[in-house]
Amino acid sequence: MTPFPDRAVAEALALATDLFSRLAAATADPPGITRASFGEGEGEAHRILAEAGRRLGMEVTTDAIGTLRMVLPGRDRALPAVAMGSHLDSVPHGGNFDGAAGVVIGLAIAAALREAGRTPQRDLLVLGIRAEEMCWFPAHYLGSRALFGLLPRDAPDTLRRVDTGRTLAEHMAEQGLDPTPIREGRGLLDPARIAYFIEPHIEQGPVLVEEGLPVAVVSGIRGSLRYPLARAHGVHAHAGAVPRRHRRDAAMATVALIAALDERWSRLEASGADLVCTTGILATDPAHHTSTKIPGVLRFSLDIRSLDASLLAELDAWLRAEAARLGAARGVTFDFGPPTHAAPAPMDPGLRTLLMLSASQAGVPVREMASGAGHDAATFAGLGIPTVMLFLRNEHGSHNPDEALEMADVGAGLAVLVPAVSELLG
Amino acid sequence: MTPFPDRAVAEALALATDLFSRLAAATADPPGITRASFGEGEGEAHRILAEAGRRLGMEVTTDAIGTLRMVLPGRDRALPAVAMGSHLDSVPHGGNFDGAAGVVIGLAIAAALREAGRTPQRDLLVLGIRAEEMCWFPAHYLGSRALFGLLPRDAPDTLRRVDTGRTLAEHMAEQGLDPTPIREGRGLLDPARIAYFIEPHIEQGPVLVEEGLPVAVVSGIRGSLRYPLARAHGVHAHAGAVPRRHRRDAAMATVALIAALDERWSRLEASGADLVCTTGILATDPAHHTSTKIPGVLRFSLDIRSLDASLLAELDAWLRAEAARLGAARGVTFDFGPPTHAAPAPMDPGLRTLLMLSASQAGVPVREMASGAGHDAATFAGLGIPTVMLFLRNEHGSHNPDEALEMADVGAGLAVLVPAVSELLG
Repeated sequence: MTPFPDRAVAEALALATDLFSRLAAATADPPGITRASFGEGEGEAHRILAEAGRRLGMEVTTDAIGTLRMVLPGRDRALPAVAMGSHLDSVPHGGNFDGAAGVVIGLAIAAALREAGRTPQRDLLVLGIRAEEMCWFPAHYLGSRALFGLLPRDAPDTLRRVDTGRTLAEHMAEQGLDPTPIREGRGLLDPARIAYFIEPHIEQGPVLVEEGLPVAVVSGIRGSLRYPLARAHGVHAHAGAVPRRHRRDAAMATVALIAALDERWSRLEASGADLVCTTGILATDPAHHTSTKIPGVLRFSLDIRSLDASLLAELDAWLRAEAARLGAARGVTFDFGPPTHAAPAPMDPGLRTLLMLSASQAGVPVREMASGAGHDAATFAGLGIPTVMLFLRNEHGSHNPDEALEMADVGAGLAVLVPAVSELLG
Repeated sequence: MTPFPDRAVAEALALATDLFSRLAAATADPPGITRASFGEGEGEAHRILAEAGRRLGMEVTTDAIGTLRMVLPGRDRALPAVAMGSHLDSVPHGGNFDGAAGVVIGLAIAAALREAGRTPQRDLLVLGIRAEEMCWFPAHYLGSRALFGLLPRDAPDTLRRVDTGRTLAEHMAEQGLDPTPIREGRGLLDPARIAYFIEPHIEQGPVLVEEGLPVAVVSGIRGSLRYPLARAHGVHAHAGAVPRRHRRDAAMATVALIAALDERWSRLEASGADLVCTTGILATDPAHHTSTKIPGVLRFSLDIRSLDASLLAELDAWLRAEAARLGAARGVTFDFGPPTHAAPAPMDPGLRTLLMLSASQAGVPVREMASGAGHDAATFAGLGIPTVMLFLRNEHGSHNPDEALEMADVGAGLAVLVPAVSELLG
């Protein structure tokens, strides 16, 4: 990679800092900010970034479904572009950085290229994607899937925003957008026109803070196996009067199952497997539970994620066998309910290597790590587009007003990305 | 024990059968029956059994706090009496037998003695005790503790019935009863006047049904260690983005603690210890839990019961040490909240032997077993009165409309109790 003038990176960081301030001011909703999918705050963020793109001399358009497309033209317009970006919506009262950082950094890179006086061979396409946060419309990667024609055709008329109860089509119309391409299953962006996709994003866990690293290259987006609506059925009985061998205790049986999963997870991790397991919901029946009654029913959820699709399948089979074994031993029936599956999205090995190398050349401490959360990058990777993500250190997790991305770490990210993206642009 | 004429036992069973029918008809509240503590159904049950006592020629009185006392006079009125009985209240929409069976069988034994033409040396005192079910007033053994002056003096004015919100004093006054003795801490029955107390009661678990036995002699009433309001505090976080070593998962930590208790229980039981453990409440926060979030807080309850007070103390210490160890390893703090303790009440060895022997002579299959539920008998045993309970086989547990005590098993109980009580009466 050819070295890049420090001045250009400094200019890029100054732009990013300014844009984060504008975004926070324009979408403030104390505590934190709110940018509802296809709502007011999201629209405001699109307007702020579009204006910044125009000032950078980019070709700025918004497509029918609201995707913000900002192009820094290359010398050879026939070549597929290098795309960057992320989403511009947020959870209610969320933080300023989840999503927005990816778009802001895309623009900052365009600024760095302009400052350095470079006109690369390929187009740089910076995308402001709509509607990634599932808390508004209950669908994964709504905006990026719509962009590529991957949403179900009835989505505009069946998906309803959780807070308003109104349909996706109604909310799109209110923003001057057109749901027709979704209804026709028509993609608005040809994957063949994208050579690479790079999504910078804040880390949503504590790893980089704990390890004192400003950035990480994402090795892959974990796939998931979820049972959000599992139940154990036993028999309610008197807590004092029923001996162990006669009990059909839904709580104790579930505790045994989850403890066995936890132990297996611990062993698998020790042997190097990528895995996280969560029981987010564990609930005896609030209408009937009391401390002196053996619970006859327990509701629980399981969320198991891994980069390794075969490990997820293996754990699924193990879980069902273990539940059958424990259930038989304890007189309890496990009903896992409908599962949801998401395939792991591996990041492109070439792009991972490029970013690791760039970090090394820039003297930025880095590691590789899996993304446990889903991201629009999974949509691009799923289409076969070589894709990578760069995580930026962020304190306090995401989806809350306390997200804390230091501008120094944005600088570290730019120090890694500017030369690498420039290399890809040719 | 001198044999007893079959005719007398048959007469006793006929009376019991009739009284159960009258009770069910008079206190019906579909599904099941309702006899609220110091309420209408309880009063109705008292009237029915008082009338039956009078017909048997017993001295029938009601004391100031409402205890029904029915005496079949002995030859030597100066001797302490043999007392029998149980409570006459029920849970809302409960079954016909929990409590009432003990009073009905006391009367049936009086009938058997009369039918056999015997006038024993000691008085037989049959007690209809008030207010044993904790679902009305939140206090253990309210009626029997009041009888012996063991309630806190402010109880009439501070205890409120859960359904009405009105005080114990108000409810007593409404039934024509007088809370003054309770306010003065004054017992109405001198423990020295009771030579023995025998409480027949339906079994509230499934043991006798499963083992095909009509009756069991109770070896003791389990004491309890309870933490009804325990909590685990960790940190809410993203289910996918936080690796195992960084998690502070309140649910997984609690699962590990309860699984360890379950395992310890299994080992202790295998080595012959008397023990039951229950987690009746297990609840992530319904306002914030979701399947994709690591729970930062979990509410749970523990109910541990044993005949062995030292085992309860030992388990309490173990639990706290284990919680500290697991909490430290998993970044979670356990707050057990205030415990409640109830001491085990051992049944009198002499009386246990007498009933086992009587069953053997009568050819009634029998076993000894612990009572996991609390009973008024614990109040009597706590005062040093030699006490025993006889459990009668009952299907479907108690505290529900489906309690099922077969009259044949009442007959088996009478076949054991009539000669034994007669022996004690002299």
